Amino acid sequence: MVDFIGIERVRQLVDQAGAARLIEDLATEIAADFARWGEFDKSARHASHSAVGVIELMPTSDGRLYSFKYVNGHPKNTAEGLLTVTAFGVLADVATGYPLLLSELTVTTALRTAAMSALAARYMARRDSRSMALIGNGAQSEFQAIAFHHMLGVRELRLYDVDPAATAKLERNLAALRLEGLVVRRCASTAEAVRGADIVTTVTADKRNAVILEPSMIEPGMHLNAIGGDCPGKTELHPDILRRPGLRVVVEYAPQSRIEGEVQQMPADYPVIEFNELVAGRAAGRADATEVTLFDSVGFALEDFSALRYLHRLHRAQPGLHEHVDLVPALADPKNLFSLIGPAARVAAQERRPRLAAGTRS
Amino acid sequence: MVDFIGIERVRQLVDQAGAARLIEDLATEIAADFARWGEFDKSARHASHSAVGVIELMPTSDGRLYSFKYVNGHPKNTAEGLLTVTAFGVLADVATGYPLLLSELTVTTALRTAAMSALAARYMARRDSRSMALIGNGAQSEFQAIAFHHMLGVRELRLYDVDPAATAKLERNLAALRLEGLVVRRCASTAEAVRGADIVTTVTADKRNAVILEPSMIEPGMHLNAIGGDCPGKTELHPDILRRPGLRVVVEYAPQSRIEGEVQQMPADYPVIEFNELVAGRAAGRADATEVTLFDSVGFALEDFSALRYLHRLHRAQPGLHEHVDLVPALADPKNLFSLIGPAARVAAQERRPRLAAGTRS
Repeated sequence: MVDFIGIERVRQLVDQAGAARLIEDLATEIAADFARWGEFDKSARHASHSAVGVIELMPTSDGRLYSFKYVNGHPKNTAEGLLTVTAFGVLADVATGYPLLLSELTVTTALRTAAMSALAARYMARRDSRSMALIGNGAQSEFQAIAFHHMLGVRELRLYDVDPAATAKLERNLAALRLEGLVVRRCASTAEAVRGADIVTTVTADKRNAVILEPSMIEPGMHLNAIGGDCPGKTELHPDILRRPGLRVVVEYAPQSRIEGEVQQMPADYPVIEFNELVAGRAAGRADATEVTLFDSVGFALEDFSALRYLHRLHRAQPGLHEHVDLVPALADPKNLFSLIGPAARVAAQERRPRLAAGTRS
Repeated sequence: MVDFIGIERVRQLVDQAGAARLIEDLATEIAADFARWGEFDKSARHASHSAVGVIELMPTSDGRLYSFKYVNGHPKNTAEGLLTVTAFGVLADVATGYPLLLSELTVTTALRTAAMSALAARYMARRDSRSMALIGNGAQSEFQAIAFHHMLGVRELRLYDVDPAATAKLERNLAALRLEGLVVRRCASTAEAVRGADIVTTVTADKRNAVILEPSMIEPGMHLNAIGGDCPGKTELHPDILRRPGLRVVVEYAPQSRIEGEVQQMPADYPVIEFNELVAGRAAGRADATEVTLFDSVGFALEDFSALRYLHRLHRAQPGLHEHVDLVPALADPKNLFSLIGPAARVAAQERRPRLAAGTRS
């Protein structure tokens, strides 16, 4: 049996730990894995593009555990009542090749992305950062708000989305959370939201070269947390922002980010710092209080690896639903795979039927 | 909810259809997909190698459906009571990126590999083939026996394995199946099993350049169905067999087979025919009754695509267990992902708890 974390189980785990606490724990796990960057088997993700979206596989391994994530990106989905991004993943044992955990990663990706954003901002944003513009108020926005409130001490959020209903939804969810000392302001434009903000988080979903941020909006000392540009042809920043003299750009894994991130708009030798260099202390996230910093985030397989391992530990340690799926056979004789479906298997199945309770029947 | 086919459900589906019939149906599906080869998005699989095995992801798509398979290969596993190969896979909708089906593929891979072997042999083996040597009597051997008995009319099987217990297990399973007119002979060596056979199937598991077949064993008119050489450094045929003048070699997808198949032992310009050319009628599988033919099988993602689509249809059409897993969220407002874990979600979960029955609890 393979351990299984579905939507209901992840809801329970987040409820037990608390979202803010869980995001901070995830950030700690992610930082620890970036600190041993050299141990990971890294490859750019495998992407299957269609006219309306992309389906990606993101594998990695540290030689003991292997993980992959399946994730789609279909911006047009929301108009049909579906999610832009859904995801699930597997953690496996390298020594045997057996899967250990199958987990939903739609909710978890939002949690780990927020954890990664806040973790990077701890290295890159000014220490006295208290206000954040949140441009794009869709599925990931609450997670970013919780992470920056809890981990960075952000106390003012300035919201903008082209869809006012999305902003209203975010406001309602934030009000229900009653985050300590948080002031939430709805803004009439991106420019208004960004003006004077210490941190600017862009998390929009359009699958095109959009211009969410213009060069004129950027102020000295700002930290830009650019999440939405994460696919070839999908960016959020005007290229002149990337050409700004003295801009410090940090990415997760340069070979992937040059294909998928904001820096896809720049030449192949455009200077970037990899995040693992910040964790290792080989590079600084910020030189001074006036520098403009950019975390050009696309999401790397290592972050999902950390999240799957963390969830698995939580799943096993915390009381509640412990679900499994019969995804892999257990055999008395491993060379007798046929025993699963041969004539004897029918008899055995009839005998054990009353005890079997795997999955929902319809 | 994502449809789920676990070990128990696949057992039930095979039981309802019958293994021989199901393998033949699978062969028909696979042939139909090879006939529209140009429509598939093809890439060599992503392999993560360790000292003791490999974990692979095999994605493909025809523009409407997307599939991938996770599969490991760990020959040392059987000594620990575990399977050499386990697998599972997903079928997804390209238009939305949503997964439709999560299925076990350990049993299914054995079924589809047998289907592919017999399908290739229909094009490549002599029409009057009645005897088959089966070298390697492990997890896949019964499936090969059923497929060649049912689809090719094989009536004599000559068994050999370095592990006599594996051969005894295969004999027992075949006896229980009572396949019409089938004579099964246990042989003392590979050479004895191969001598005079019309078809030679090698399905051994060693992860090394083994020499299961020697040039001296090869007789005019034989068809070689080489399954076990499917990984860099893992082959079954002496390279001189590949150098035999006039040998006809068919592979599934040349770029992958040149890395993983028997032909990895040959130069990059070694002549091979792709199986889709046989299906399209652009190449012959055999020139005459004396030619030696080799199907250098490694397993291609298209075959799993066909199998997943077929199983999904069967799963939906046949009565019995219709299982689901809550792997993907269903949301009233797709931009409100947070509603799954926010304060309101806890209340909702408590209200619906009595009705919830997803997965086995422990």
